[in-house]
Amino acid sequence: MDAFEPTPRDQFSFGLWTVGNPGRDPFGEPTRAVVNPTRLVAKLAECGAWGVNLHDNDLVPFGASATERDQIVGEFKAALEDSGMVVPMATTNLFSHPVFKDGAYTANDPKVRAFALRKTMDAIDLGVELGAKMFVFWGGREGTEADACRDPRSAVARMRDAIDFLCEYVKDNGYDLRFALEAKPNEPRCDIYLATTGHMLHFISTLKNEEMVGVNPEVAHESMAGLSFTHGVAQAMEAGKLFHIDLNAQRIGRYDQDLRFGSEDTKQAFLLVRLLEGTGGGGRYTGPRHFDAHAYRTEDEQGVWDFARGCMRTYKILAARAAAFDADSEVRALIADIRDETLDPLLGGGYSAEKAAALRAADIDIDVVARRGLGYERLDQIMMEHLLGARS
Amino acid sequence: MDAFEPTPRDQFSFGLWTVGNPGRDPFGEPTRAVVNPTRLVAKLAECGAWGVNLHDNDLVPFGASATERDQIVGEFKAALEDSGMVVPMATTNLFSHPVFKDGAYTANDPKVRAFALRKTMDAIDLGVELGAKMFVFWGGREGTEADACRDPRSAVARMRDAIDFLCEYVKDNGYDLRFALEAKPNEPRCDIYLATTGHMLHFISTLKNEEMVGVNPEVAHESMAGLSFTHGVAQAMEAGKLFHIDLNAQRIGRYDQDLRFGSEDTKQAFLLVRLLEGTGGGGRYTGPRHFDAHAYRTEDEQGVWDFARGCMRTYKILAARAAAFDADSEVRALIADIRDETLDPLLGGGYSAEKAAALRAADIDIDVVARRGLGYERLDQIMMEHLLGARS
Amino acid sequence: MDAFEPTPRDQFSFGLWTVGNPGRDPFGEPTRAVVNPTRLVAKLAECGAWGVNLHDNDLVPFGASATERDQIVGEFKAALEDSGMVVPMATTNLFSHPVFKDGAYTANDPKVRAFALRKTMDAIDLGVELGAKMFVFWGGREGTEADACRDPRSAVARMRDAIDFLCEYVKDNGYDLRFALEAKPNEPRCDIYLATTGHMLHFISTLKNEEMVGVNPEVAHESMAGLSFTHGVAQAMEAGKLFHIDLNAQRIGRYDQDLRFGSEDTKQAFLLVRLLEGTGGGGRYTGPRHFDAHAYRTEDEQGVWDFARGCMRTYKILAARAAAFDADSEVRALIADIRDETLDPLLGGGYSAEKAAALRAADIDIDVVARRGLGYERLDQIMMEHLLGARS
Amino acid sequence: MDAFEPTPRDQFSFGLWTVGNPGRDPFGEPTRAVVNPTRLVAKLAECGAWGVNLHDNDLVPFGASATERDQIVGEFKAALEDSGMVVPMATTNLFSHPVFKDGAYTANDPKVRAFALRKTMDAIDLGVELGAKMFVFWGGREGTEADACRDPRSAVARMRDAIDFLCEYVKDNGYDLRFALEAKPNEPRCDIYLATTGHMLHFISTLKNEEMVGVNPEVAHESMAGLSFTHGVAQAMEAGKLFHIDLNAQRIGRYDQDLRFGSEDTKQAFLLVRLLEGTGGGGRYTGPRHFDAHAYRTEDEQGVWDFARGCMRTYKILAARAAAFDADSEVRALIADIRDETLDPLLGGGYSAEKAAALRAADIDIDVVARRGLGYERLDQIMMEHLLGARS
Repeated sequence: MDAFEPTPRDQFSFGLWTVGNPGRDPFGEPTRAVVNPTRLVAKLAECGAWGVNLHDNDLVPFGASATERDQIVGEFKAALEDSGMVVPMATTNLFSHPVFKDGAYTANDPKVRAFALRKTMDAIDLGVELGAKMFVFWGGREGTEADACRDPRSAVARMRDAIDFLCEYVKDNGYDLRFALEAKPNEPRCDIYLATTGHMLHFISTLKNEEMVGVNPEVAHESMAGLSFTHGVAQAMEAGKLFHIDLNAQRIGRYDQDLRFGSEDTKQAFLLVRLLEGTGGGGRYTGPRHFDAHAYRTEDEQGVWDFARGCMRTYKILAARAAAFDADSEVRALIADIRDETLDPLLGGGYSAEKAAALRAADIDIDVVARRGLGYERLDQIMMEHLLGARS
Repeated sequence: MDAFEPTPRDQFSFGLWTVGNPGRDPFGEPTRAVVNPTRLVAKLAECGAWGVNLHDNDLVPFGASATERDQIVGEFKAALEDSGMVVPMATTNLFSHPVFKDGAYTANDPKVRAFALRKTMDAIDLGVELGAKMFVFWGGREGTEADACRDPRSAVARMRDAIDFLCEYVKDNGYDLRFALEAKPNEPRCDIYLATTGHMLHFISTLKNEEMVGVNPEVAHESMAGLSFTHGVAQAMEAGKLFHIDLNAQRIGRYDQDLRFGSEDTKQAFLLVRLLEGTGGGGRYTGPRHFDAHAYRTEDEQGVWDFARGCMRTYKILAARAAAFDADSEVRALIADIRDETLDPLLGGGYSAEKAAALRAADIDIDVVARRGLGYERLDQIMMEHLLGARS
Repeated sequence: MDAFEPTPRDQFSFGLWTVGNPGRDPFGEPTRAVVNPTRLVAKLAECGAWGVNLHDNDLVPFGASATERDQIVGEFKAALEDSGMVVPMATTNLFSHPVFKDGAYTANDPKVRAFALRKTMDAIDLGVELGAKMFVFWGGREGTEADACRDPRSAVARMRDAIDFLCEYVKDNGYDLRFALEAKPNEPRCDIYLATTGHMLHFISTLKNEEMVGVNPEVAHESMAGLSFTHGVAQAMEAGKLFHIDLNAQRIGRYDQDLRFGSEDTKQAFLLVRLLEGTGGGGRYTGPRHFDAHAYRTEDEQGVWDFARGCMRTYKILAARAAAFDADSEVRALIADIRDETLDPLLGGGYSAEKAAALRAADIDIDVVARRGLGYERLDQIMMEHLLGARS
Repeated sequence: MDAFEPTPRDQFSFGLWTVGNPGRDPFGEPTRAVVNPTRLVAKLAECGAWGVNLHDNDLVPFGASATERDQIVGEFKAALEDSGMVVPMATTNLFSHPVFKDGAYTANDPKVRAFALRKTMDAIDLGVELGAKMFVFWGGREGTEADACRDPRSAVARMRDAIDFLCEYVKDNGYDLRFALEAKPNEPRCDIYLATTGHMLHFISTLKNEEMVGVNPEVAHESMAGLSFTHGVAQAMEAGKLFHIDLNAQRIGRYDQDLRFGSEDTKQAFLLVRLLEGTGGGGRYTGPRHFDAHAYRTEDEQGVWDFARGCMRTYKILAARAAAFDADSEVRALIADIRDETLDPLLGGGYSAEKAAALRAADIDIDVVARRGLGYERLDQIMMEHLLGARS
């Protein structure tokens, strides 16, 4: 066992739907047997994971009776206790059943919107019962193919009504639970509303209880659109809104791949881990490191656990690489803050007419500034050599 | 002259940099002569445009003396008066000069940040002098290639400092001017901060004077990332933040093309014009219809004016198609609101425990709902036939 | 009934799997009942289609006995006869069953490769029995996620072995059947070998019986990668290799959407129809106009037939627009060939030292040539106005 | 000096245009001074490079007189001799001058096509004079924005006429020179003909002297379209057509970035180096390792040399990682060939009716085969850990 083996102290979590994914895809049938949630929990614990997350229907089948539900939940709680695993996050499946084909909270039919709210309240109750402190919303069907079917402004308004309602439901029940909203630009819908973490952050700023709502950015979802995942996450952190995170890997401009963490776009994965771990300064993310990924369809159950270990190991390798990078004295020199005793006071602390005048009068030789090389090729190459384990 | 010929009543505007673009690109030299701004204004007026927008350096060369500046501005004002054209929007060029190679408001060097603020104040003064009511910010260099060069959270904070400062500058001077922020995910930088209109809307919500700041979404910039431009604009409109708009055309996943409006992704262009014109209900955008595009490099000056006319004509054709679509009785039937006397009161007007209970008790047959066909293939096909002028 | 209603003379065909698609996707269950193939044939005929295509398992379930197979095929032939429909093309499903999870012809396990060949021979027999003259190969699983699992050169060689073998099988049996190979860059595999129509055309040039093998380009597959579909199809036509075509619609950089023909990227759809119909000169494609698309998941069976009619109507509208565009005298003037009596003979008919010398001596004023505007903005705008039905 | 420092034995080459790039981009002016070619050669040699490549106009300005040309060439040859550098490859610039705005070999105006041929003949003479054995063609302007301007089939035919002519020119002059064609899907044109290495390979198969023509794939060009670069290169190698290669880095779906080799999509870079070095078996590429990249615009001249060293060092690090991966006994076990004494003889060596019958009769239990896990998650994770230097 090397330094990169996962332990519960690392706060790694997986969704039941991730290690339980049987390998069905749009062009093919399942390749693996469905594994019981209680076995998944036990095996995750064996692999070094700390938490397990779930959609309501990952555990309790759609349409189960109250008795069935209670029995299933009881067995699951026992499995948690046996394994020492926790449920840090829960969510609800508002995308698989055909009733959601036009959306859930944004569907045109009030019956669908009502049913979606009801299903979510039940899922919140379930999550709280299992100990979850975070509830994630991914609106997989909240979008369109035939865009004229509704005004996109109504969709935003309906989404707001739903989240406002559910915030109050949580408060009314005295639950210790916060919400994390997850964006995705497309798939399974042609275009999904509130397409990126940026759009979601803005939407949150319009909510009645915005303080209890943050984001759950997912690597694959922002990367599909070719956006810098690190920049999106950083904007959320700067605003105190990074409530949860979904780790996986994805190539740009493709179907939703949910690959093993770090196995694509390794540089962005490094930058992300560095940001979350705070080795470069600026604050550390303290929530769960959640993997929303699944094993290749070529794998049997053993391959699933190889996959799970791989996600966690790569995270820890990248964290070690980031720590070494940020401790590198040449790096520190290259990114040291530039101080300017005259200008710094003018640039911070707000506007005044005097500052404006001083800025206008300041002696700045822009040609000298423009000519200075910034050493960023060197900086980035050092980073790559750390990433590749080629610089000690 | 047909119904689609542009007139000043249509409020079409162009940037000096658009019709003045001489056809240089990363792989080739200019193919057209540079045309004097005063001639550009006169020709735009001839084509039926209403307004002309500008970066400071489109009109006044970088480093011009105060005397030169005043002479140039005087001649330009005379040209505006002669032609009846207005300057609805101004902006500042913080990307061409090498001093901005590391960014402007977010650059690591305080000298650059100071110079950028000073240059913007001057550009604001110029814009106000020319009558502009809107000032656009596009931070073309506010990004990175070597991402470790700064913490992306610092970049957001520096951007906020700058916009907060400049809002106060405007207020302190008593200017009647609002700001519109323009996002772009990449190019010329590998990744640009605040990558989409969504990220920008959120950023605005964190400003001290957020009421005077909105967005200026550009078709090409959101489309590069494959996002639905219509959804992004709709979110801005729903929040009262669509202050300006940049119209052009772009294929997804490419360099910044700035093609003639409507000449790519015609369906999205239709949906956008329909949204802006409000033919489907939900409110109309009343600001300038600004084109931020340029003629192909194969064109001479005549080709530039063909290009400009083409932008405006296509907008008007699409507006006519949208009006016909929304007046089509079959369309109205397909997208009529579904009312539900029992559920509608539960879904609007906020949460109560009683509503939650009523939702849980409501009689909803989800299988019946799930089976209902929604007619969206029909709806979209009718839309395409309107778009193609094949349905009267 | 207007001029755009489809008729059998238009040679429109659909796959059983297209109008039979029940609306399952990676995130959701089916939304429509499965419809019997014989009913699909009858309804397609009603809609004006001419042909129906199939995978072996669209008609005969995987693992059916010989007796079952013969009964099903007999009923299907009767349905064809009743409706006057033909089966122009057949193919085999080498992607749904888990046995193909590592590929079919390129799988590492010889058992899989052997089974894939055997299944294809049976599917060829079935296709020939139903009257098909074309057999399509789409190797949905011929790719990788973990790229180190095999040398990509071996994959190409294995693919060649398989197609060479099957060509000989067809000849040995005296079948009147040609092959059409279909490329796709990704999905369901992370990367699929022979990623585009270009790669496939080259692969064909290395086959033993290359004369009996051509391509079956699909709009969605090339468009996913953002390539010009028209250019790829044109290259195939120029080489006499356009044997079949799959029509649908797709946004760039996304999951495989298979949308209603013409409903996205309408300009490319126009350019494609213009090329296939040969209205601009240069030869017409005479094979089937096959739609490989499916209705939105929001639709019931009625929506499926709306979808099918929409595909065909849009094709006919675009064909009419293309004819009008190419008959437009202004267009003809803009794209008329430029003749040069001195240079034309030097540029055609092969090399000679004398031609080389004459080219070097020719009097060419490149500055004059460079300055000439080409009128392409005008040309493209006229095209858009024809497309939008706004120019008569 | 560690094991990754470049030496001439590594056969690394750079274009004059790469290390000579002054940092101009579509939105900004140059940030670095232009450096004399003779100095570039000397500095490249200092960095450990072996060869330097050039466009005609990188060395001899467009329109230079014969005397100027000869003087420049003489000085350059002297610099080569002083530094021990070679010129393995030459090419011609058919994209910068406005005369090529509509294409070069495919332009509609015969004068342009004639001038392009003439310019290429001169550039071939220059390349041969400098010792080049390879001549690269990148047709940056061979494409369209207004696609109706010419039939894309004519474009392919014109391209064929040009390459056929130039092959004969080389033979007629007794030059020891081969051609390598370079594809690119877009930029600076909206769509460029023969968009990928696959399309180019097929085009080559239609040439009169196809044996002297191969491909020059570029990482950035295939990656822009999101294609697997490794698969494209492998197809070329399998066909004996990898004549040259352009190494750099690129994010998918963006403007042409030409970043430092290995600095993006590090996994693909690893797979590529592994393929070129042949550590996994299947043959090694023996030509130049050419870098077609340039330093960030933030750099001064020192940054340019940091950039150049970085390209070469990363290549060598990746080569070391590939060698270790392929020597790893667990890897060898995971990707060992599966042998089947019964089936292997049926699958190779061509068709016979007996083989077809034997395949049909073979006893294959597909359910057993389907259930077997393939260990690809493990394989890929081991590869990532080698890549990250975390497995010894």
